[in-house]
Amino acid sequence: MNKVVCLIPVSGFSDSKTRLSPFLSSSERRALLKFMLKDIVSNIRESVDEVFIVSRDEEVLDYAMSLDCRIIEDKNLGEASSLNNALVYSMSIIRREYGLCDVIIIPSDIPLIRKEHVIHVRSSDSDVVISPSMGGGTNLLFIRKDVDFIPEFGEFSFDKHLDQAGRNDLSYEVFDSFYLSVDVNTPNDLGEIMLHGKKTYTYEYLSKLDITVENSRSDVRLNVKRD
Amino acid sequence: MNKVVCLIPVSGFSDSKTRLSPFLSSSERRALLKFMLKDIVSNIRESVDEVFIVSRDEEVLDYAMSLDCRIIEDKNLGEASSLNNALVYSMSIIRREYGLCDVIIIPSDIPLIRKEHVIHVRSSDSDVVISPSMGGGTNLLFIRKDVDFIPEFGEFSFDKHLDQAGRNDLSYEVFDSFYLSVDVNTPNDLGEIMLHGKKTYTYEYLSKLDITVENSRSDVRLNVKRD
Repeated sequence: MNKVVCLIPVSGFSDSKTRLSPFLSSSERRALLKFMLKDIVSNIRESVDEVFIVSRDEEVLDYAMSLDCRIIEDKNLGEASSLNNALVYSMSIIRREYGLCDVIIIPSDIPLIRKEHVIHVRSSDSDVVISPSMGGGTNLLFIRKDVDFIPEFGEFSFDKHLDQAGRNDLSYEVFDSFYLSVDVNTPNDLGEIMLHGKKTYTYEYLSKLDITVENSRSDVRLNVKRD
Repeated sequence: MNKVVCLIPVSGFSDSKTRLSPFLSSSERRALLKFMLKDIVSNIRESVDEVFIVSRDEEVLDYAMSLDCRIIEDKNLGEASSLNNALVYSMSIIRREYGLCDVIIIPSDIPLIRKEHVIHVRSSDSDVVISPSMGGGTNLLFIRKDVDFIPEFGEFSFDKHLDQAGRNDLSYEVFDSFYLSVDVNTPNDLGEIMLHGKKTYTYEYLSKLDITVENSRSDVRLNVKRD
């Protein structure tokens, strides 16, 4: 089986997830980001050969090393439109220093990911595997080692990734997973983690903040509150 | 392989999906419900032995027959707390008139369901299969023919179904599917159908209403508009 690495871009721990403000303070959002990253790394570590974290933020890079991840520093990551450049740059670094390998790119805010997801992806015989996020994005992108594919994360990236695969006659699989689709951007998303993430560090942290979840009859599904 | 039937409860076409009002008029919501039901029946028909629709609403039952479904009339369905009673009643009718069979219960508002989902569920060797909806509910419940299991649809039913399976020492599988998790209750949900349901009758209908989707930076993911 090919070597497989996981690549996780992290813009920074500060001033992130602003849609959770003022529901969570700046320091609470920083802690949340760390616990989510810890969950992801813990859950996937044994099912990949190596985990790489790319960031321009020293705090992120230090934390990544504390999680025994390999790091890639990118001075530009975090600026608008630079995410995909940072991923292309990282893949070139990885392939140069680590050798030709399959790459799984995931965001840093999907704490419900499980090793079974990675095992499933590794067993695919497609050139590319794409997993939808809620709201039209992509929460997992698998690129086989000898395949040219340019990440197009951002608005409605799921369709963009499907289009790119189609245009280039690549075989692709849509990996249909609810747990992968849940990235954390809004209070409602925290509610999903409270409901489905009971074994995660993220859940444990949110519980300590006395966050509770009720059903909602409004435009969002879950009424997420702090007691 | 066991006989498998699909059971779909439908409360009624009128005064439903009120969270989509005033985004959609009453007659548009009625049409939406019909197209969603048509999508579901079309998508699953070939992968089950029979589709049963239970309702108290004559218009629903007439429409179900026009889709070549078998119908079960339940005078109580549609009142609060009666959904699960109607399902228990329907399962007893089905097993008496149709013979012992596996039952797949799904709601009537998940137009992204595909035959592959049913095929996957049929291949499970668990007593029960449970699929999460966004917001803590259940969007698919499979009950093997010789298994006693009481549907507990409603608020946070996903955990209730897991608990029931655990309490009764039943083997169960969580079926992790994004497409199954999308039920249509809010304008945001219509956005997911616009993004992921391009081959559905529901999509075709919503397109005719000039519904468009943009990314949102607010508490909901998608900014769904009518031009």
